[in-house]
Amino acid sequence: MMSDSFFQPISGFDLPRFAGVPTFMRLPHVTPDHPRFQDVQVGLVGVPWDSGTTNRPGPRHGPRQLRDASTMIRAQHQVSGLRPFEAANCADLGDVGPNPADIQDSMQRITAFYDQLVAAKIRPLTAGGDHLTSLPVLRALAKDQAVGMIHFDSHTDLFHSYFDGTMYTHGTPFRRAVEEGLLDPKRVVQIGIRGTMYDSEDRDFAKANGIRIIEIEEYFARGLKDVMAEAREIVGTLPTYVSYDIDFVDPTFAPGTGTPEVGGPNSFEALQVCRELYGLNIIGADMVEVSPPFDQSGGTAFLGVSIMFELLCAMLS
Amino acid sequence: MMSDSFFQPISGFDLPRFAGVPTFMRLPHVTPDHPRFQDVQVGLVGVPWDSGTTNRPGPRHGPRQLRDASTMIRAQHQVSGLRPFEAANCADLGDVGPNPADIQDSMQRITAFYDQLVAAKIRPLTAGGDHLTSLPVLRALAKDQAVGMIHFDSHTDLFHSYFDGTMYTHGTPFRRAVEEGLLDPKRVVQIGIRGTMYDSEDRDFAKANGIRIIEIEEYFARGLKDVMAEAREIVGTLPTYVSYDIDFVDPTFAPGTGTPEVGGPNSFEALQVCRELYGLNIIGADMVEVSPPFDQSGGTAFLGVSIMFELLCAMLS
Amino acid sequence: MMSDSFFQPISGFDLPRFAGVPTFMRLPHVTPDHPRFQDVQVGLVGVPWDSGTTNRPGPRHGPRQLRDASTMIRAQHQVSGLRPFEAANCADLGDVGPNPADIQDSMQRITAFYDQLVAAKIRPLTAGGDHLTSLPVLRALAKDQAVGMIHFDSHTDLFHSYFDGTMYTHGTPFRRAVEEGLLDPKRVVQIGIRGTMYDSEDRDFAKANGIRIIEIEEYFARGLKDVMAEAREIVGTLPTYVSYDIDFVDPTFAPGTGTPEVGGPNSFEALQVCRELYGLNIIGADMVEVSPPFDQSGGTAFLGVSIMFELLCAMLS
Amino acid sequence: MMSDSFFQPISGFDLPRFAGVPTFMRLPHVTPDHPRFQDVQVGLVGVPWDSGTTNRPGPRHGPRQLRDASTMIRAQHQVSGLRPFEAANCADLGDVGPNPADIQDSMQRITAFYDQLVAAKIRPLTAGGDHLTSLPVLRALAKDQAVGMIHFDSHTDLFHSYFDGTMYTHGTPFRRAVEEGLLDPKRVVQIGIRGTMYDSEDRDFAKANGIRIIEIEEYFARGLKDVMAEAREIVGTLPTYVSYDIDFVDPTFAPGTGTPEVGGPNSFEALQVCRELYGLNIIGADMVEVSPPFDQSGGTAFLGVSIMFELLCAMLS
Amino acid sequence: MMSDSFFQPISGFDLPRFAGVPTFMRLPHVTPDHPRFQDVQVGLVGVPWDSGTTNRPGPRHGPRQLRDASTMIRAQHQVSGLRPFEAANCADLGDVGPNPADIQDSMQRITAFYDQLVAAKIRPLTAGGDHLTSLPVLRALAKDQAVGMIHFDSHTDLFHSYFDGTMYTHGTPFRRAVEEGLLDPKRVVQIGIRGTMYDSEDRDFAKANGIRIIEIEEYFARGLKDVMAEAREIVGTLPTYVSYDIDFVDPTFAPGTGTPEVGGPNSFEALQVCRELYGLNIIGADMVEVSPPFDQSGGTAFLGVSIMFELLCAMLS
Amino acid sequence: MMSDSFFQPISGFDLPRFAGVPTFMRLPHVTPDHPRFQDVQVGLVGVPWDSGTTNRPGPRHGPRQLRDASTMIRAQHQVSGLRPFEAANCADLGDVGPNPADIQDSMQRITAFYDQLVAAKIRPLTAGGDHLTSLPVLRALAKDQAVGMIHFDSHTDLFHSYFDGTMYTHGTPFRRAVEEGLLDPKRVVQIGIRGTMYDSEDRDFAKANGIRIIEIEEYFARGLKDVMAEAREIVGTLPTYVSYDIDFVDPTFAPGTGTPEVGGPNSFEALQVCRELYGLNIIGADMVEVSPPFDQSGGTAFLGVSIMFELLCAMLS
Repeated sequence: MMSDSFFQPISGFDLPRFAGVPTFMRLPHVTPDHPRFQDVQVGLVGVPWDSGTTNRPGPRHGPRQLRDASTMIRAQHQVSGLRPFEAANCADLGDVGPNPADIQDSMQRITAFYDQLVAAKIRPLTAGGDHLTSLPVLRALAKDQAVGMIHFDSHTDLFHSYFDGTMYTHGTPFRRAVEEGLLDPKRVVQIGIRGTMYDSEDRDFAKANGIRIIEIEEYFARGLKDVMAEAREIVGTLPTYVSYDIDFVDPTFAPGTGTPEVGGPNSFEALQVCRELYGLNIIGADMVEVSPPFDQSGGTAFLGVSIMFELLCAMLS
Repeated sequence: MMSDSFFQPISGFDLPRFAGVPTFMRLPHVTPDHPRFQDVQVGLVGVPWDSGTTNRPGPRHGPRQLRDASTMIRAQHQVSGLRPFEAANCADLGDVGPNPADIQDSMQRITAFYDQLVAAKIRPLTAGGDHLTSLPVLRALAKDQAVGMIHFDSHTDLFHSYFDGTMYTHGTPFRRAVEEGLLDPKRVVQIGIRGTMYDSEDRDFAKANGIRIIEIEEYFARGLKDVMAEAREIVGTLPTYVSYDIDFVDPTFAPGTGTPEVGGPNSFEALQVCRELYGLNIIGADMVEVSPPFDQSGGTAFLGVSIMFELLCAMLS
Repeated sequence: MMSDSFFQPISGFDLPRFAGVPTFMRLPHVTPDHPRFQDVQVGLVGVPWDSGTTNRPGPRHGPRQLRDASTMIRAQHQVSGLRPFEAANCADLGDVGPNPADIQDSMQRITAFYDQLVAAKIRPLTAGGDHLTSLPVLRALAKDQAVGMIHFDSHTDLFHSYFDGTMYTHGTPFRRAVEEGLLDPKRVVQIGIRGTMYDSEDRDFAKANGIRIIEIEEYFARGLKDVMAEAREIVGTLPTYVSYDIDFVDPTFAPGTGTPEVGGPNSFEALQVCRELYGLNIIGADMVEVSPPFDQSGGTAFLGVSIMFELLCAMLS
Repeated sequence: MMSDSFFQPISGFDLPRFAGVPTFMRLPHVTPDHPRFQDVQVGLVGVPWDSGTTNRPGPRHGPRQLRDASTMIRAQHQVSGLRPFEAANCADLGDVGPNPADIQDSMQRITAFYDQLVAAKIRPLTAGGDHLTSLPVLRALAKDQAVGMIHFDSHTDLFHSYFDGTMYTHGTPFRRAVEEGLLDPKRVVQIGIRGTMYDSEDRDFAKANGIRIIEIEEYFARGLKDVMAEAREIVGTLPTYVSYDIDFVDPTFAPGTGTPEVGGPNSFEALQVCRELYGLNIIGADMVEVSPPFDQSGGTAFLGVSIMFELLCAMLS
Repeated sequence: MMSDSFFQPISGFDLPRFAGVPTFMRLPHVTPDHPRFQDVQVGLVGVPWDSGTTNRPGPRHGPRQLRDASTMIRAQHQVSGLRPFEAANCADLGDVGPNPADIQDSMQRITAFYDQLVAAKIRPLTAGGDHLTSLPVLRALAKDQAVGMIHFDSHTDLFHSYFDGTMYTHGTPFRRAVEEGLLDPKRVVQIGIRGTMYDSEDRDFAKANGIRIIEIEEYFARGLKDVMAEAREIVGTLPTYVSYDIDFVDPTFAPGTGTPEVGGPNSFEALQVCRELYGLNIIGADMVEVSPPFDQSGGTAFLGVSIMFELLCAMLS
Repeated sequence: MMSDSFFQPISGFDLPRFAGVPTFMRLPHVTPDHPRFQDVQVGLVGVPWDSGTTNRPGPRHGPRQLRDASTMIRAQHQVSGLRPFEAANCADLGDVGPNPADIQDSMQRITAFYDQLVAAKIRPLTAGGDHLTSLPVLRALAKDQAVGMIHFDSHTDLFHSYFDGTMYTHGTPFRRAVEEGLLDPKRVVQIGIRGTMYDSEDRDFAKANGIRIIEIEEYFARGLKDVMAEAREIVGTLPTYVSYDIDFVDPTFAPGTGTPEVGGPNSFEALQVCRELYGLNIIGADMVEVSPPFDQSGGTAFLGVSIMFELLCAMLS
């Protein structure tokens, strides 16, 4: 599997990083009606949508800021030596157009877009969007078969509902995904969970269904290598989705997010956990909850795309 | 009509302005279950809600920042000499709790809250929230009879729908209000309209229904005194609602808003237009679209509460 | 000891976190003239005062920003499982009104307020304010008997005077407290001290009086568990005050403070040290030097209230 | 002259403004090697370059921020009713790639790019870049014949040299352009000049060559209508370039620029002056000196693209 | 009266404006112990002090930011053609070192410093500091004879006291100055007064003593030329002090201040009023209440030094 | 070697840290024409220059912000007890004036300035400026003999050229320095290298010439003590230059820089590495790439000067 020259990103040696219309990692912009769409192998997709946010909105602006920051990404991974844009045909597939005033309509639009990717055998690397984004994506990717998931986050997102019965928020996607048969709970592991708790309703659901929660205290006590080894075992060799909420990282390193929890991993670890994903059977991944209004410096977005590059390498390892 | 001592705000001579739990204008916090609720004559209400926003969200954070900035407001109007907190029992009625993930549910919650105010004969001065807020408020205030409206804004908010048929957004509230019989279009005047246009669909609706639009060029050419005299004539002596979108003001003076349009009035005029409302039959007023994430300095909120103080004086003139 | 329903905070499942007049941790606002004041067991108090600041002012704005950020705190501690608002009647007692232009007057006002708490057997958890705040608080709490102290900070605050003989600044409170017999220096431990030094005058005073200083290099070398075990031994089972200067934490994690020193603990450790306080005889605690003008993002305040929640749990453990 | 459907921008009714890869005004991205390049009539070009800046750099980041802000521009001019994207084939031609470490190389690259536009009969509307940008652009546009210029600015940019003989900086472009025969000085008018002066060297050059300088005091005293009438007369019906430095506008309205001068026109006038350009023989225009690092809110960029829309309408009037 | 070469500022043509240790307007730094101190004719002095601030502190940081911004000031006034640094020996005399924790001590230090200037016949142009700064300055300048004052501000600063009898705050300096016989109230005019009022206590004092207050509504109605003509007449040809509070200007143009009031003059007028001071007998002037923590962009400081340049020219006209 | 009283910095006990014209660490300002210049032993020099920057400019503003932040530095090192300002005559030598529009001219100006220091036997501690600054400095310091270098950075800065043959950028200084014989590559060690890679061209050059690169993964795996021991061995006892790029530190701790790479050391380690330099033969050191426009809070500058203090102590150890 080798990419052709059409799919090569523009180098910072040729065009300064601040120049040019910004696409993800300076890849070609290939929408579904583009003649080369069928040749794409990994598609970077923006889902600028945050209607499921219960507290501070903003992730709808995430994809644009992530694209901007991604012009700083170069061609080769320092440790693995992998050159992902040569390893596969990668492209920026543009944004899914949401309906910011209608959650159900938006979810249908998102699933419909990803159905096209599944049909074209394009593996998606998604830039959200709040965490509800993962649900309509999984509806496309896991339509035929429940998948496993490695989930980096400070929250479980396993709640039943909010505000007297509202079922679709960024705090409920994986409860819904389990209920809809999209996730195999026994192959789901959640890493980095922390922060003050409402109660233990989410943990009870996890326990009852076999979802493994690794709280931050356990994570730091055991070390990331050990934790990630267990995570790899949990998902095994079957199809696995990787969902990375930027609030997994300590909010000092990633202030641009809506529901921060202090006391998380630093940026070095934020990258390292991805390097433990190599060789897994990754059918798709996402980077969610990057919220530009709460990070005008752009540092969160730059960390976000640095992680996206790591995820991309893991998908192509 | 004179207020009693319970309803006096805390003076900055007694407690420094940065101290204390911030309520609107340092008034007592009187929720509907408070023993003095029935004695309130003008209620300041927060509606922290922006689910109707089609572009940059943020007004859900408006009431809190407006309360904070309002600690800078003192007791007397410089020009009219009015002392509103002595003229009537004013109170902070707290916030209406919205459901950020369900527009219809939120509108019902808002209308239900304002129904209580109508029942208690409390006139509301609302701090939004995005401009869709005005619709559920009007459903309570104008339940029995269509009202007139003086509307300061850079947009008409008269569009039919967005995104293939979405009827409830912050660009459509007054189209709905006319359709629902809450507004008498012949007694509606919109002042300050400007910015690039999609097309003339909203203007066509206005023209067909008798709504008067005063664009910014006409506003500046005639001067605010002349424009406001016409506005007063349009609404006459019958019940009138005042809706003040902070984006009426030039975005340099009010950057904290989601859909700015350059070339608007300055802050002096932003206050002056309110002084031309004295003596009208104002049944309620709102200050909407203040969006803290886009104005970290708080200047927009301070301008917003300065306008709210002017509106309060107009309501009590 | 169990709280009654009046003292329960509002849940984020019922009212979104951005809504409502913000009190500390969404607790009821109970000022000394409130009918339930006598039932309070732990009182959260704001002291918006920074007249003792020798460099960059700002902590006078701390309590308001801390209250705002505290709406993100939930009901249960993740590790200990403690539910502090059920364990005791907790309330927001409001702010002590200082006199920003008179240090002595302000100190008297503060002590007078805390005298009321002592009389009502309310244990205080204070949100400052600069570090001089601790002195008038101790004058109330330790009136009858010198107390021990665990002090997290990057500075000793043990200097004799500034600017040719000025005795009351945020660099001198604990020198005064020892001199006034409020602190038993042999039961005082200061943790995290670092930064460039004027000279060793403060260290000499500490040594002469038996105050234990644990500099940051020793702290990192031994690890926090070991350091905190020593701290527990130093204060023993007698009454102990906990004073937490936010500049204990590295300024990257807590930029909103006036006299930062680089090279401190991260946010995970900032929480962990509090978990080593469980079971001590804590008569009161404070979180000081949070300075909003130097942290517009609010990250410092959020860390500050996360630490306050930890301190609250330690007080109720 | 009517555009075809390929050249229509994406409407905010169809795709929310925060979504999609941002091109200028949501127009198609048509680089010189694109099959439709020859059909373009007006080309929007970015020149991300600020090597000529003698004080605070930043305009190299201008085109990207201007593109982002331009997603707020709609299809129709409110006053003239003009729909520019229907009046001509407009496109985003991308950025000219500069060499940030070599001024001469960059100027050659820019001129070479604009030579292509001249060859294809595409009129350019440029987004700089600092003001030195105008020089290499004029070298292409005025190669065969000196042109006239209406120049909005707070500075004359007519200096001889800086730092002991450096001839190419953002303070010298029009001195060079006159010397090189690109500008006909008798058909050049500079409007809005103000600020403290080094000396009168630039004014002496202007006077000696017949360049008309209208200082801000004269501008305000006469009013913009009168001033612009004179400007129209000066350039007449011959080919004219319009150069718009954002620092023409008062820095409160446009803080994002490197060499601000207080006391300039407000944003309403910033638009109005463009409306007085209708009917002139405009061969090209530029918007320069927008510097994002000094305006994180983006207000300057939004004003900049609002002016670009006005300039575009003037070019197509 | 002509300056010698020692007193010439560094030109931006020789050293870029961002380079060099920043002194006021790039003048030589001449402290009282400098051999050329006796030759100084106009001294620019910083008073980094804000202990009199009752609300948001910050002006203690003013002088440093004003010095930094002042590197943008050039040598010649655009309208009058005056070259102040040639007209007199101007120098940066450094800062008066205050005692931030002792108001009386600080006032003595300030007066002592200005006594030296009076002795050396140096006229001061002061950069504050909050408005209490003017009082100890006047104690030196008006020791022998009450002076007149033209006072630009949004507040009268004529209150009796705050917080139960505190006499020295930034809201009381001119009450004290009248009481102490430093100001001749019949030769005092206050221009631009506005904002919500506590009550009319300050106006009553003004009326009783013959101080002329020109509120902002009168100012705008009459126009600045007419208002300033009256002001000139009020102070006449006798010694006059000019006190310029940056909050005279609308807070959009000058956000960096502690007690803003919306609806003030713009930046063009902020300069123009100074041009109406030419020829008066100005014994000293100040620019106060510039508060950097509330204006990180530095726009307020740049406006502040632009006004200082105007005041300097007026002093030397 | 002991300093005399002229060279003592101003203490924060005497003059508050926010007061006074800011020089580096409050040292006397001694330019080459000053009578005490010949007595200086260590000179702190600003080089406000960033013309070699290929991406985001800003370090030209570094020296000013570093001077400002340096007023927080006190007299004594906490761990070593060293009092550097007593150990040697230290002074602020001012800024080298660059030509921002001419790279070659600027490099000549810089080398000429440092030639003066070499002649006066002053060891320089430089505050850049971008990393190209190190090249003209080394041309003066290593004129007679190639030196060794300990280089903290996230990039090797060993590239051949950019943009089709541009040889002098901030990505090429040490390639040039090796080619020019200024650096002995076998005595060069680069620590902290990380981030995505263009390709391995720089690593190939390093390997071919014997430069030792310690990537961040190796750094964290071995620990800083072990890494620094190797570094000390590599440079040995011969003359050594220390070049410290602030982007060595993780961008969360040092956001104010132009080419950040996530996953670096924290601020404690940023200081610790300097403490391992004691006793080396350090002929000069620099702190480069501090870029104020990307760090308005000033945290990066404060970290930068904290490191400069550590470097100064190492130079005097």
